[in-house]
Amino acid sequence: MKYFITGAAGFIGSNLVDRLIEQGHYVVGYDNFSTGREVFLEQARQSQHFRLVRGDTLDLPALTNAMKGVDFVFHLAANADVRFGTEHPRKDLEQNTIATFNVLEAMRTNGVSRIGFSSTGSVYGEPDIFPTPENAPFPVQTSFYGASKLACEGLIQAYCEGYKFQGYIFRFVSILGERYTHGHVFDFFNSLRQNPLELHVLGNGLQRKSYLYVQDCIDAMLLAAEKAVDKINILNLGTDEYCQVNDSICWITKHLGLQPRLIYGGGERGWIGDSPFIFLETQKAFSLGWKPKLTIKDSVINTLTYLQENSWLMEECR
Amino acid sequence: MKYFITGAAGFIGSNLVDRLIEQGHYVVGYDNFSTGREVFLEQARQSQHFRLVRGDTLDLPALTNAMKGVDFVFHLAANADVRFGTEHPRKDLEQNTIATFNVLEAMRTNGVSRIGFSSTGSVYGEPDIFPTPENAPFPVQTSFYGASKLACEGLIQAYCEGYKFQGYIFRFVSILGERYTHGHVFDFFNSLRQNPLELHVLGNGLQRKSYLYVQDCIDAMLLAAEKAVDKINILNLGTDEYCQVNDSICWITKHLGLQPRLIYGGGERGWIGDSPFIFLETQKAFSLGWKPKLTIKDSVINTLTYLQENSWLMEECR
Repeated sequence: MKYFITGAAGFIGSNLVDRLIEQGHYVVGYDNFSTGREVFLEQARQSQHFRLVRGDTLDLPALTNAMKGVDFVFHLAANADVRFGTEHPRKDLEQNTIATFNVLEAMRTNGVSRIGFSSTGSVYGEPDIFPTPENAPFPVQTSFYGASKLACEGLIQAYCEGYKFQGYIFRFVSILGERYTHGHVFDFFNSLRQNPLELHVLGNGLQRKSYLYVQDCIDAMLLAAEKAVDKINILNLGTDEYCQVNDSICWITKHLGLQPRLIYGGGERGWIGDSPFIFLETQKAFSLGWKPKLTIKDSVINTLTYLQENSWLMEECR
Repeated sequence: MKYFITGAAGFIGSNLVDRLIEQGHYVVGYDNFSTGREVFLEQARQSQHFRLVRGDTLDLPALTNAMKGVDFVFHLAANADVRFGTEHPRKDLEQNTIATFNVLEAMRTNGVSRIGFSSTGSVYGEPDIFPTPENAPFPVQTSFYGASKLACEGLIQAYCEGYKFQGYIFRFVSILGERYTHGHVFDFFNSLRQNPLELHVLGNGLQRKSYLYVQDCIDAMLLAAEKAVDKINILNLGTDEYCQVNDSICWITKHLGLQPRLIYGGGERGWIGDSPFIFLETQKAFSLGWKPKLTIKDSVINTLTYLQENSWLMEECR
């Protein structure tokens, strides 16, 4: 198969590129390197099965041109910055909603009809049901990020209905693992490197969150694309557990051998649009035969170890 | 109060303009006249309480400038053409999603925080529950129109959460009444004027649909804006009944004294993305004290009478 991956130089994208090449597939990676990193594609670029195209998803002609002759598109490029939505609402509209429209149009032009899409548990807003199933009550959006991903989901569904596309919509919890470059483990580790005696925590530390290891995430995406046969396949991806922010702090500080003073920002939410409880029902994905191999705790430790071994990332991200 | 109405020269918009002026309010009407009509604003333009601004919702500076000093925005401008979405998917993205983003940004710049929005029952896709409540299971989109309105809803919700806006999201069934210029009553009447002996019907005629009279719709919108106090108020607007396409054909032909041969296109759906059954739960709106005055049948006859008295519309819309 020949895959097209947007956001190929990103955290999840580059891991997916490596996996597909390992499996013998051909991959065209598309990235504008706004947050993606050359170094994440070092391994892939040694393969003759990989071609990198530098380009922006907002550049429809370039995107259309790059996509020629592929069989399947994984659209992972996005503004994944959930926290600062209110500082630049246009960013989510452009880099998520309009970019996804462009990906779908490029597919239509090229006669490519199968798409896998990285959506998010944030589309559930602040749900009332936990674990939250795919058919939870019609949600109300609480973040620009969630709203833009919801818009993308709707577009993909309309293309499936209107142009006989086949869509795989993955509603991720937060993903952890190798090449992880933003989120709470990164922020906490980075902060503790600078000051091991104090740790500032957004919110009250009681927020309950879910995480999934990136390789488990990729297992699920590829299995779904192989086994789920509906026109539109919507799947929550997470583990069957959640943790408190305080649990994670405990694992991280213990692993680092630190005992910082914890300074809480206070409040149930870490920021505007932060969901105090994220816990997705994953039975639907499990029923395909998928099961995550790492627990949340293992994913956190694994990520931390990766960051310790790659401290250059801290410098780059300052 | 000073209201700002996008799509002020349209079917629902112009009726809302007239009502608000009647009630003694000030109204700034904004319209690009792509489908709106000068004549619908004839009455309003005789009032010193009304100001018309010709402009496009995609022109953010013009929109922002026109909105200065208003208290409440009714954003009704849209591509309301549900049926031809697959012919121009970009239209719904631009005229609905991006336009709504612009309206919200113009509000933010002007410090206006209250918005009423014309969404649609189409956001429920093809639901499993009838009548369909506002908190129906997370829907899957079946049309570009529905997908774009869903995107608009998400944006409005994110602005309510992120910038303390107050939002009124109205999920309409099909609206009928004076100044109605597209939809099945228009199409059937127009077709029968040209050939009273034959009537082509999209689908099998068994599609079950809901309709609401435009003045009833306006009653509900204004009552909700007055009485519903949540940050985000989502209300289905329709009557507590539905009819079959064949019922409506029967009412129309009887009213016109015709007995045309009916030629069915066949299939459960009239077009790609057509929902074979639309019937919304309206208890939430009823609980505010609202009740529609006209039945679906009365609305259809009323609309037909309006079209008979305004046959120039038929000529213009050819």
